[in-house]
Amino acid sequence: MEQRARVLIDCPDEKGLVYKISKVFYDRDLNIENNREFVDKENGRFFMRTVVTGVFESEDLTQALQRVVPPHSDIQLVLPRRKKIILLATKEAHALGDILIRHADGELEADIEAVIANHDTLRPLVERFDIPFHLVSAEGLSREAHEAEVMAQIDRYDFDYMVLAKYMRILTPTFVAAYARKILNIHHSFLPAFVGANPYKQAYDRGVKIIGATAHFVTDDLDEGPIIAQDVIPVNHRFGWQEMRRAGQDVEKIVLSRALALVLHDRVFVNGNKTVIF
Amino acid sequence: MEQRARVLIDCPDEKGLVYKISKVFYDRDLNIENNREFVDKENGRFFMRTVVTGVFESEDLTQALQRVVPPHSDIQLVLPRRKKIILLATKEAHALGDILIRHADGELEADIEAVIANHDTLRPLVERFDIPFHLVSAEGLSREAHEAEVMAQIDRYDFDYMVLAKYMRILTPTFVAAYARKILNIHHSFLPAFVGANPYKQAYDRGVKIIGATAHFVTDDLDEGPIIAQDVIPVNHRFGWQEMRRAGQDVEKIVLSRALALVLHDRVFVNGNKTVIF
Amino acid sequence: MEQRARVLIDCPDEKGLVYKISKVFYDRDLNIENNREFVDKENGRFFMRTVVTGVFESEDLTQALQRVVPPHSDIQLVLPRRKKIILLATKEAHALGDILIRHADGELEADIEAVIANHDTLRPLVERFDIPFHLVSAEGLSREAHEAEVMAQIDRYDFDYMVLAKYMRILTPTFVAAYARKILNIHHSFLPAFVGANPYKQAYDRGVKIIGATAHFVTDDLDEGPIIAQDVIPVNHRFGWQEMRRAGQDVEKIVLSRALALVLHDRVFVNGNKTVIF
Amino acid sequence: MEQRARVLIDCPDEKGLVYKISKVFYDRDLNIENNREFVDKENGRFFMRTVVTGVFESEDLTQALQRVVPPHSDIQLVLPRRKKIILLATKEAHALGDILIRHADGELEADIEAVIANHDTLRPLVERFDIPFHLVSAEGLSREAHEAEVMAQIDRYDFDYMVLAKYMRILTPTFVAAYARKILNIHHSFLPAFVGANPYKQAYDRGVKIIGATAHFVTDDLDEGPIIAQDVIPVNHRFGWQEMRRAGQDVEKIVLSRALALVLHDRVFVNGNKTVIF
Repeated sequence: MEQRARVLIDCPDEKGLVYKISKVFYDRDLNIENNREFVDKENGRFFMRTVVTGVFESEDLTQALQRVVPPHSDIQLVLPRRKKIILLATKEAHALGDILIRHADGELEADIEAVIANHDTLRPLVERFDIPFHLVSAEGLSREAHEAEVMAQIDRYDFDYMVLAKYMRILTPTFVAAYARKILNIHHSFLPAFVGANPYKQAYDRGVKIIGATAHFVTDDLDEGPIIAQDVIPVNHRFGWQEMRRAGQDVEKIVLSRALALVLHDRVFVNGNKTVIF
Repeated sequence: MEQRARVLIDCPDEKGLVYKISKVFYDRDLNIENNREFVDKENGRFFMRTVVTGVFESEDLTQALQRVVPPHSDIQLVLPRRKKIILLATKEAHALGDILIRHADGELEADIEAVIANHDTLRPLVERFDIPFHLVSAEGLSREAHEAEVMAQIDRYDFDYMVLAKYMRILTPTFVAAYARKILNIHHSFLPAFVGANPYKQAYDRGVKIIGATAHFVTDDLDEGPIIAQDVIPVNHRFGWQEMRRAGQDVEKIVLSRALALVLHDRVFVNGNKTVIF
Repeated sequence: MEQRARVLIDCPDEKGLVYKISKVFYDRDLNIENNREFVDKENGRFFMRTVVTGVFESEDLTQALQRVVPPHSDIQLVLPRRKKIILLATKEAHALGDILIRHADGELEADIEAVIANHDTLRPLVERFDIPFHLVSAEGLSREAHEAEVMAQIDRYDFDYMVLAKYMRILTPTFVAAYARKILNIHHSFLPAFVGANPYKQAYDRGVKIIGATAHFVTDDLDEGPIIAQDVIPVNHRFGWQEMRRAGQDVEKIVLSRALALVLHDRVFVNGNKTVIF
Repeated sequence: MEQRARVLIDCPDEKGLVYKISKVFYDRDLNIENNREFVDKENGRFFMRTVVTGVFESEDLTQALQRVVPPHSDIQLVLPRRKKIILLATKEAHALGDILIRHADGELEADIEAVIANHDTLRPLVERFDIPFHLVSAEGLSREAHEAEVMAQIDRYDFDYMVLAKYMRILTPTFVAAYARKILNIHHSFLPAFVGANPYKQAYDRGVKIIGATAHFVTDDLDEGPIIAQDVIPVNHRFGWQEMRRAGQDVEKIVLSRALALVLHDRVFVNGNKTVIF
């Protein structure tokens, strides 16, 4: 039976990889619909994303590929399926709402399993879309205790990615480690400018003429994870910090949704603290 | 002796091309420094630009590649060499000056052979850079007669590309045919908006909020050639058309120089009336 | 009692206007919170938007202003109030959804009275937000007959602005005249490029490197109304026209919402077939 | 005799300023060609730039304005004149070259008095334009001793602004204080991201998707002066840091030239560590 798969390869670079890998496809009479490669010469790393169609058996294809790439390679064969995501939010509706609308519109290549929030503000909006909403208030709880409760909610679900849609809580290394490379965040500044709290106030105080937003994977170092997407918008002296925030929110939501689409389409490879995006 | 070459392939698409081409490189123990491919499925066309290093004989490598691709393929092996360009201009200095500065700074992967202009305005600027300047005045001449004189000047030189750096004359099909796929132009609008004369006046009259510029190859249809690069800049109601022109000139020169660099680095394939850019 | 008002003046230009107008405010001891002026010298037209606070009687203030400006002036005093809008849509959810989310989030300085559509596709989405949805199918109806039914629905409501959130029907002059300067549209191209049907297909066929969207007031001439906002996004040869459309939809919704906010904040003056935006 | 002047007012805000100032113009029968105001409410500061034409005596007009504004006001009457600038550079040609071309083209509202550099690299380029070039090598000199020699060269000239066109030396507070509010710099990053040395290497290491440049006035705090203009350009994982630098240089030169034009047109007010730009 004719199938389609995304083949994702992340491995040490060596001579002949393109030949050897394409030979595996050729020998099986597979058609290459789309092919992108990148070699990070500085770190000697090879990345490839190929969409193949044809008759194949996943196990066989994966093993054949593994035989031609060096040790310590990461090979994934992604067959068409809807992914699952979980959203974390606090009070702001714009980034969450943008994802909800795209989901309702069928634009997202994923299902939203649940929204978990530390305030109840967004419950009415989420429930309009018939998506489970879980409040885990942080009131009276230590950071660790609150996070444990959030994790308890999260772990009720099976999911591919967790999206922090303006979740305004700092995550502990324990939390981040539990969901490594699965957490997407939108930072409301053009990182690495204005790390930390209230970047719009910082941007206003600095008198910048452009503000931006950054979608990235979350790692232990706050605001230091691999960047997936960034965009900017011009501002001027007439913008107070609230106007900057309002203007910035449009950028935030578009950048987060763009990063989410890239990840769901398996177009993002993590390369150390950077990304390769096909 | 170790060499480096850019291999450019433009051919009908068929199954197995990546495998067959990479096998040619693999069999000769060549290293792939960089590889980009694109398949235009609509038109069944395959494009590939590969930078290879290693020991090879150009004739042999080209022939080996020709044996594995379909008929009607275009294969080029570009060895490192400085290309040659000719510039045509009229009176405006910004686009020409930008190229002159890049040339003087050693940034350009090309030598400027000459500047040919239909007015003498830019002579002092060009001669500051010790580059031959030829005036071919159109005064009193028919379009054909003038163009014949321009072509006489052009044909004194050997060149890879001709850059119209704000050459404000309409070219005849004869001229365009004589230098097919060799002529780059900067159009002072975001094509296909505002084709024709004085696009800034048109943009002003229309009340647009963004203006742009378009670098393209020149074909018979005025302003209809394959687009290489475009960029834009925001404007507002305070801009008269002269202010729009001034703002637009910054975009023009950057877009033209960007397109020129892409072409000189052999990153641009013409695909019908479009381009593929690696 | 202390009040705040937006004073909007659109009048023939003449010497001393700023002095005479500011004298009216000064004599009443009003505070100028914000002031923007623009003189269109080409057409001899003066525009001013001033936010004043203080104790005043609207009728008196308006009359005082009328006494100092030339005949044929348009003076508006806008006291704080929530405006009312009506949305027209067809099948696409992105632009409509963006406005619904902003409305639900309290970001919009307006209430949505109703959504009227010529297909039933968007009913579930709209009804999630408890907003009246009216289907007026065009099936089996002449353009005039359909439009008459749409107008019948529209006229049940009192509203300030009608927003065409991807309403894919051509409007007759009768319709446009009935709601002059009240209709906002989002055109899915960077006007005046690609007027007419399926601009993304046109953009794809032309091979452009940037696509855009244009929000404008609707006038008789299709796609020729005064432009309020435009924005763009880069694309490349890997984008099919559907990918261009998807990328473009993000621009469309942001540009439409930005234009709507400008209009709701009384920041947009129509100046012939252009706009002045403060 | 009919004259034209730019009136620049920077003063504490208070009620009635627009009225009082426009009354001064009205009483003298002056025409307002262009008028921009801004009130910084946070700091209670009023800024105004008005272009007036008519018959006036400068001394009288300035005194009349001084009588109606609060104490500690800064009023400037700028009559049409070519300003004078001095350029400092090191080895990179792009920013310097862009200004030289604009100057040669008559686009700049200023004369270039001299170029001073700490290397001889750019001498041939500068001398092509018949502009004095002074080498002040830093070799074997302490920072202070070198700066003293640079200042000695600078002080031979009368000038309005000093432009650091990629002058890669850190300035001492003594130097900065000597030319307060007169020094423009281009920083090769989107400040405040990547302050300090080699921002492109920093940007590359961080894996950003956008790079930028910032033109600002120089103050004691390195990279902390009031920002005049910023712009950005997208990059991706295929950019090494040298490619980022090359792409960034286009942004640098345009941003610096844009900032210089704003300053030369008296459109920039310094407001604490920010700017107001009309």
